[in-house]
Amino acid sequence: MKKFINDPTKVVDESLQGYVDAYPDVVEVLPDARVLIRKNKPSNPKVGVITGGGSGHKPAFLGYVGQGLCDAAAIGEIFAAPPADWIYKGIKKIDMGRGVICLYGNFSGDIMNFRMAKTLAEVDGIEVEEVIAKDDIASSPRENIENRRAVAGEVIMWKVGGAAAAEGMNIKEIKEVTSRAVLNTRSFGVGTFPCIIPATGKPSFKLEDNEMEFGIGHHGEPGIKKVQMKTADDTTAELMGYILEDLPFKNGDTVSVLINGLGATPLQELFIVNRKVTEILEKYKIKKLITYVGEYFTSLEMAGFSITLTKVDQEISRLILAKADSPMFKQFDLNK
Amino acid sequence: MKKFINDPTKVVDESLQGYVDAYPDVVEVLPDARVLIRKNKPSNPKVGVITGGGSGHKPAFLGYVGQGLCDAAAIGEIFAAPPADWIYKGIKKIDMGRGVICLYGNFSGDIMNFRMAKTLAEVDGIEVEEVIAKDDIASSPRENIENRRAVAGEVIMWKVGGAAAAEGMNIKEIKEVTSRAVLNTRSFGVGTFPCIIPATGKPSFKLEDNEMEFGIGHHGEPGIKKVQMKTADDTTAELMGYILEDLPFKNGDTVSVLINGLGATPLQELFIVNRKVTEILEKYKIKKLITYVGEYFTSLEMAGFSITLTKVDQEISRLILAKADSPMFKQFDLNK
Repeated sequence: MKKFINDPTKVVDESLQGYVDAYPDVVEVLPDARVLIRKNKPSNPKVGVITGGGSGHKPAFLGYVGQGLCDAAAIGEIFAAPPADWIYKGIKKIDMGRGVICLYGNFSGDIMNFRMAKTLAEVDGIEVEEVIAKDDIASSPRENIENRRAVAGEVIMWKVGGAAAAEGMNIKEIKEVTSRAVLNTRSFGVGTFPCIIPATGKPSFKLEDNEMEFGIGHHGEPGIKKVQMKTADDTTAELMGYILEDLPFKNGDTVSVLINGLGATPLQELFIVNRKVTEILEKYKIKKLITYVGEYFTSLEMAGFSITLTKVDQEISRLILAKADSPMFKQFDLNK
Repeated sequence: MKKFINDPTKVVDESLQGYVDAYPDVVEVLPDARVLIRKNKPSNPKVGVITGGGSGHKPAFLGYVGQGLCDAAAIGEIFAAPPADWIYKGIKKIDMGRGVICLYGNFSGDIMNFRMAKTLAEVDGIEVEEVIAKDDIASSPRENIENRRAVAGEVIMWKVGGAAAAEGMNIKEIKEVTSRAVLNTRSFGVGTFPCIIPATGKPSFKLEDNEMEFGIGHHGEPGIKKVQMKTADDTTAELMGYILEDLPFKNGDTVSVLINGLGATPLQELFIVNRKVTEILEKYKIKKLITYVGEYFTSLEMAGFSITLTKVDQEISRLILAKADSPMFKQFDLNK
């Protein structure tokens, strides 16, 4: 296993330590729970924003703890949910008297533990709400949209929810607008090479030479089909077909675009994908609010990418364009 | 070849198109030369900053065209220098009457073409200077420091030179401080998996299972030795040994730290490396000004990483901490 690690059982802790070593003025870890906390509290009390999930997705989740994004991230083992007790401690730590909203992905372990943490915090008198991302079209048909997994759409959820909290909205307002962003977000991904989980040393899935998995999940979950490699344009056109049809996105809509690399796919290829995405959006007369291209939510060294579109209204646009400043996600205020 | 491309001969052009499609308000391409230009000129005339080199290193070079960084990047084919004529056209385009400084890496093709472009521009009455990064310790012994290749240290060169130009310094002052930053920058990298050049479909080098190349270059150039995989801590300690000894960096110095992923190495591992780097710097009582961890200068999907340290003085610190805003490198003003 060609990995730059020490003890496979200490990968998450040592990586987290290296993260705090890199940004000691920005983040800290709770003494008794693996929860990363934003250090500089805003001057006016705001609703706290917490996320969390399994490790192996950097820059998610910890990279999004910062100004205009999340105030805390509970960090599980690789591809495993963080314990409820840690999430609860994170909620307690970041509550400023206006409640805490949990923004996480639709995975059973995360749901169970975030809800247990919510119950514990409510006993302490903290108001807790949640919004759950379910943007991955490939993981369940449209009739069972509630069963869909989360993929890179979580990033847009954090951006919108984090900006709403930073603006001073109350917890109900944040839940409303963030839920609306989630409902209007769709993703679809393809994978070409698996990742290797440090603890097992084994590939997360198998593909033949020249084969790709359409609709792959962020943990290597199978998608809808295995197909022979196609050109970037054909692959992108097929993905965009699924995405545009599902919401549906249509003539006159405005969208944010996120082309997310899963880990090992060069940025060069992601921009080739974006070229085709742009062409297709122009053909359908769908306007682009903003485009993000890069590694925003990875699966270790998995190769492949996903496309995420969010249909935006005026309020969601404003929140997406707002300033954000975490170690892994920096954006100057684009509303000016 | 599992790549998201169309025609292998159009990879660079299509990727560039996708880049401009993503950031149309920020950058544009010259009509008659593959040079990316910053769109929004500063209100006060400043010295122009141009870089360039072969493709395949994204976010370098084009990702660093923006405020407080470079004004133009001339873009060659994959791992091949851009033609002199393009560089010349870039220089002409960005000159605001205060001259243009060329900040590039120590590769023979780039040197030849940048110098030819310099000569052409000087005939037109444009003052042109250059600073050449040569930060890769492994590429040549200390006695022949002039022969060393550039690797991720170029990023620090652009940050310092770009900030100096944005401050309004004249071309001689920029050359002086940027040269000083380059002289005080040292890098060392290791590679574990090759990249595949689209045009050939072949790996850029060969390594046995469980083997890594110490001192690998950004194009897969051989380093000083092939060794069996070691732990992250042992690998990092050995790299840091070479780096600290070479300048040398010593007790009381302040440094910027750049842990650069070559393409396919997960961020998780880069932070494990940073943990050890931090421990070693603390042991030697070397202070950290700032830490960058991520993919700043890649080699397509090559796996591995490099460590870059720059010894900083007060002026270089101020320039490194200054605001920068390009699509791929955003930093809020940290001098405030």
